[in-house]
Amino acid sequence: MTFEVSQVKAIVFDVFGTVVDWRGSIIREVSAAGKRLGVTKDAKDWEQFADRWRAAYSEGTREVREGRREWVTADQMHRERLDILLAEFGMDGLSEEETRQLNRAWHRLDPWPDAVAGLTRLKSKYIIGTLSNGNIGLLVNMAKYGGLPWDVVFAGELVRSYKPDPKVYLKAVELLGLEPHEVMMCAAHLHDLHGAAKVGLSTGFVARPTEYGSGERKPDLKADSSINVAGADYPEFADRMGV
Amino acid sequence: MTFEVSQVKAIVFDVFGTVVDWRGSIIREVSAAGKRLGVTKDAKDWEQFADRWRAAYSEGTREVREGRREWVTADQMHRERLDILLAEFGMDGLSEEETRQLNRAWHRLDPWPDAVAGLTRLKSKYIIGTLSNGNIGLLVNMAKYGGLPWDVVFAGELVRSYKPDPKVYLKAVELLGLEPHEVMMCAAHLHDLHGAAKVGLSTGFVARPTEYGSGERKPDLKADSSINVAGADYPEFADRMGV
Repeated sequence: MTFEVSQVKAIVFDVFGTVVDWRGSIIREVSAAGKRLGVTKDAKDWEQFADRWRAAYSEGTREVREGRREWVTADQMHRERLDILLAEFGMDGLSEEETRQLNRAWHRLDPWPDAVAGLTRLKSKYIIGTLSNGNIGLLVNMAKYGGLPWDVVFAGELVRSYKPDPKVYLKAVELLGLEPHEVMMCAAHLHDLHGAAKVGLSTGFVARPTEYGSGERKPDLKADSSINVAGADYPEFADRMGV
Repeated sequence: MTFEVSQVKAIVFDVFGTVVDWRGSIIREVSAAGKRLGVTKDAKDWEQFADRWRAAYSEGTREVREGRREWVTADQMHRERLDILLAEFGMDGLSEEETRQLNRAWHRLDPWPDAVAGLTRLKSKYIIGTLSNGNIGLLVNMAKYGGLPWDVVFAGELVRSYKPDPKVYLKAVELLGLEPHEVMMCAAHLHDLHGAAKVGLSTGFVARPTEYGSGERKPDLKADSSINVAGADYPEFADRMGV
């Protein structure tokens, strides 16, 4: 089927990396927590803390998706890895309440500077929502924190699995009462978009070249030819979506 | 446990009747459709059309909740009854597309005049969401239509049952990652609030004395002593919630 922008009624967004700068936000929070405890580390160490914390989520969501682990939320995966990292970094002096607060750093991730204005433009014409592997409570708190103007909050949690499991994309389509091609998955990550396209969703790419900073993972800098709409940033993506 | 307003972190709202004037909106839509078809009726007849259409939903949600019927959405229940009513009212001249459009009148219900301002005030301090027996797609479209500023959209659809089934209230609590007493159910209907209170939610009442107009059903004019917070309208309810 030929893609036309006019077929899209709703856009659902990947969140971590696509809408918010998880890495910069987490580095800021963990280094501040270290400072309060008198733990001195290099900038590189805090970057490693953030990347290893994030890796728990990538690994955990894969384990759940592949049936190797019972359902657990992002909050739970973050907490398990946090306990390990705090011990390794000599930060186990945090109280239970402080540890809980720090684990909720994932609820306080800063939007990329162009994201809120871009989403607000898109909201004028489309239903906009999340479709994230983060849990609903996390996503709602993050939206309040960062002023993300979602119309609706969807997550893998609704089917107790994780993207790119087809069930996750199809649940959002079903709950919106739309056809798959009327829903566009928007992400900075091609593997997520390929998962969505496999079950018939439209696809949108927004480049986020600094997501991984100087870390080992490399961002997808460009869309491939399978992607329906691509923008180098939110303003360009919104232009191409006709808003 | 003694109730304190400060324990509330999220308020989830009943929608039909509590936030939107379903009866006035539906009477407007069905009488306009009749007029287009050249069908002449008294105002009383159009009121009866609206009330009988609404009754399909009340009956259908009860049948699903009690296990006497497989899961169907509000949209589906509305469509079944609409086909019957159109025939009875001599309006079966509508095309399939026109009938679909008319069935979506339930996605275009006007907010009560004080609702959007009241919700906007409450949103400044609380997570605000729906907890409705309407399906998610219907609720999202209605929010776009009426400018309802929800942070999150919950519905019985998420557990394929209907309020006052305890599962519906508890699913919203679970997805928010909160304790039941941290979530307030707000409605103009005491039976809904009693259902929520039974599983530990806090309760808020907003009076909507004109919901049923001159119809047979009578509104709950006041809260009873079990309700935690009550307002005669949205401004008073927001005052009492400390915003």
